[in-house]
Amino acid sequence: MTDQSQKFAQAALDIMYPNDQMAQAMGIEITDIAQGYAKGTMTVRKDMLNGYAMTHGGATFALADTLFAYACNTYNKRTVASGCDITYSGPSFEGDVLTAEAKETIRMGRSGIYDITITKQDGSVVALFRGRSRTIAGELIPND
Amino acid sequence: MTDQSQKFAQAALDIMYPNDQMAQAMGIEITDIAQGYAKGTMTVRKDMLNGYAMTHGGATFALADTLFAYACNTYNKRTVASGCDITYSGPSFEGDVLTAEAKETIRMGRSGIYDITITKQDGSVVALFRGRSRTIAGELIPND
Amino acid sequence: MTDQSQKFAQAALDIMYPNDQMAQAMGIEITDIAQGYAKGTMTVRKDMLNGYAMTHGGATFALADTLFAYACNTYNKRTVASGCDITYSGPSFEGDVLTAEAKETIRMGRSGIYDITITKQDGSVVALFRGRSRTIAGELIPND
Amino acid sequence: MTDQSQKFAQAALDIMYPNDQMAQAMGIEITDIAQGYAKGTMTVRKDMLNGYAMTHGGATFALADTLFAYACNTYNKRTVASGCDITYSGPSFEGDVLTAEAKETIRMGRSGIYDITITKQDGSVVALFRGRSRTIAGELIPND
Repeated sequence: MTDQSQKFAQAALDIMYPNDQMAQAMGIEITDIAQGYAKGTMTVRKDMLNGYAMTHGGATFALADTLFAYACNTYNKRTVASGCDITYSGPSFEGDVLTAEAKETIRMGRSGIYDITITKQDGSVVALFRGRSRTIAGELIPND
Repeated sequence: MTDQSQKFAQAALDIMYPNDQMAQAMGIEITDIAQGYAKGTMTVRKDMLNGYAMTHGGATFALADTLFAYACNTYNKRTVASGCDITYSGPSFEGDVLTAEAKETIRMGRSGIYDITITKQDGSVVALFRGRSRTIAGELIPND
Repeated sequence: MTDQSQKFAQAALDIMYPNDQMAQAMGIEITDIAQGYAKGTMTVRKDMLNGYAMTHGGATFALADTLFAYACNTYNKRTVASGCDITYSGPSFEGDVLTAEAKETIRMGRSGIYDITITKQDGSVVALFRGRSRTIAGELIPND
Repeated sequence: MTDQSQKFAQAALDIMYPNDQMAQAMGIEITDIAQGYAKGTMTVRKDMLNGYAMTHGGATFALADTLFAYACNTYNKRTVASGCDITYSGPSFEGDVLTAEAKETIRMGRSGIYDITITKQDGSVVALFRGRSRTIAGELIPND
């Protein structure tokens, strides 16, 4: 990866994370960033449980969606989600440490598809998430 | 709706909500419940914003997913999400009041499809969510 | 519906169907068209069966996708599918008469969501299809 | 891969393909099969075009869906699709040779997720397809 591309990738994190109130409030940490790629973790807290004392689908989704957002914003073009699909493949519970890894599957024009896999500490897959991105106007940092 | 069916619908709310830590933490209120149906609201707070100061996709999803969970648990059979698809149709921001209405589209055997529409206070549609449910073992209340 | 809007809706059928080789080859007939709406039928033939002698998922999808295409092209703007999701809710077999009804759920800018329901002759639902459309450059008929 | 697993994989092809009228009618050839994996090709014919003279979404889907069906039936357990999502990433036209490669992403209990990528002869990606499978009762060959 060139210096330029890593600089753009890093900018996604540096520019967006300080404003990403929800990721911060949920304790989501971004551990890796590169063009088309992001990885991060979240520990399931009590306030992330649903009515059956399992991790709320919205919490699992929020983790995946966060990594998706960082991965698709690594080209210095403001990019948003147009839609997402999530499939749950196993439950998780309070105290579980979830890891989400987002990889770009394809970019074509202003659209992209990103696949995010969420695993827990034993390596088992908790959810598969496929995000559809759309580039909008604007850059993250001056492109000079 | 018979007394029995409304009793089962109400049970979803009475049994699940007190344990639904995430719905409570996000200030999600359930305003209507009936078999195959649920409606509720959430006000977008600062800690629900993403890196672009718009409502985080995970917060919008969590609201829809919550109403989905209540709507599909109204038959006194423990039911979980197997997957969901969300399409975002417009942005929302801090202070917006979001309403999610969940309607059952079809049930076949142990599976179901629920469609949730999220609107904001001006009536515009923020997101469309389609949830796929799966009934598991167990009941919410003694079925006598 | 104004004369203008019905004229645009009818144009989708008159312009596209003569070129729609696949719809014709599958015996798909379009029975109703209006802005944001289309309805049609297909009889399941032997050459539409899969390895289990049920209707091939691709045949069911093709019927839904066809009605989706007509419904989203009723505004005199060339529109294509960006993606689709289908859920199968019951099997169908050779000789079954399938009806697909496509309704517009939302349009926002150049994007739209259309929901198509496929039923068979006994009224039971065979599949639910949600199509995501995208308007591209060009009109179907001169807009004067 | 053990002899047993390859025997089961091959059985999917040997048992299902002779009855798979639609795959045969569309000229879909299965070129590779292994547990959780299948690959095949289809040449776009005139009768697979839509109203814009591009490959009909239903034809592209049918190819992906066919490879999905073979890939998920390689464990000697009758398996059907519960639903699928397809994203179109580029057009194709009459005469294009499409290749679909189906890979298993996850299996959990009776459910599975399979990802199918469709490319054309220049290697560009035409569509991404994610299939959700469900095992039903019955085996393909006597399991002794």
